Amino acid sequence: MIVLGIDPGCVVCGFALMEKKDRKVFILDYGYIKMSAKKSLPERLVIFHDHFEKMLHKWPIDTIALETPFLGKNAQNFLKLGYLRGILYLLAQKHNVKTIDLSPREIKRSVTGFGGADKDQVARVILQFFPKLSMPEKLDVTDALAITLCGVWHKQYNV
Amino acid sequence: MIVLGIDPGCVVCGFALMEKKDRKVFILDYGYIKMSAKKSLPERLVIFHDHFEKMLHKWPIDTIALETPFLGKNAQNFLKLGYLRGILYLLAQKHNVKTIDLSPREIKRSVTGFGGADKDQVARVILQFFPKLSMPEKLDVTDALAITLCGVWHKQYNV
Repeated sequence: MIVLGIDPGCVVCGFALMEKKDRKVFILDYGYIKMSAKKSLPERLVIFHDHFEKMLHKWPIDTIALETPFLGKNAQNFLKLGYLRGILYLLAQKHNVKTIDLSPREIKRSVTGFGGADKDQVARVILQFFPKLSMPEKLDVTDALAITLCGVWHKQYNV
Repeated sequence: MIVLGIDPGCVVCGFALMEKKDRKVFILDYGYIKMSAKKSLPERLVIFHDHFEKMLHKWPIDTIALETPFLGKNAQNFLKLGYLRGILYLLAQKHNVKTIDLSPREIKRSVTGFGGADKDQVARVILQFFPKLSMPEKLDVTDALAITLCGVWHKQYNV
């Protein structure tokens, strides 16, 4: 069972790919896409789309795990998050892949045991869980690793 | 010069295609996509994507005209509008087509002469402008015709 977890952003977008095998979890790939703010939004959306389309071609992904979006102070950022999510839903449906939404609290609680954990705490627990991993350059990557791990552990797979 | 105007919606989505030739405006196509609410959102996004991808293959479209989105009372509807717009930006960039955003006031003022016009007034003026057109079944279509007409008239083409 392979889960792709994504922390979408229009400038930096973290992602991680994990496989669950015999109750063990392995990281197959992880990293981030950097989309220059100098590029237009449509140009960045194409980079974003093509990156994940390639991953969906390469790996037999079962599920894309995402964080439930909440409207913050900036409505335009919320709308842009919609652009990225729309593209992911489109890709998921075209490749017959399920999507799951996990709330930020659910992700933090599932990974650290505490729903109010901050990004650094999440990063530390992720590094404990995968000792061979070195600290990624961006917290967007540890966030994506946490989303993915929570997706792998999600109850629908543990019935 | 050919403009595709779209009034995006996750259930009913109006669209119109117009050509400007020697200062005259012709309707090449118009209508709406009906996406059953029984279908999942990713299924509807694929229908939406494939419809406009086909149109972009069929016609030498120069510009996609859209209405500027505003956050209303329902944040989830705003997010869903983001899903649809993200897909349109992706298609526009892939097909090397420009997008323009027109504010609701700008559209209504440009078509009816009054920025506060309601949907029925917009529909009536559209029917006067195109006498061969019969009243479309949905106001989403007259809205899309108004967006397209405003896109055709937009100052960038009249310099």
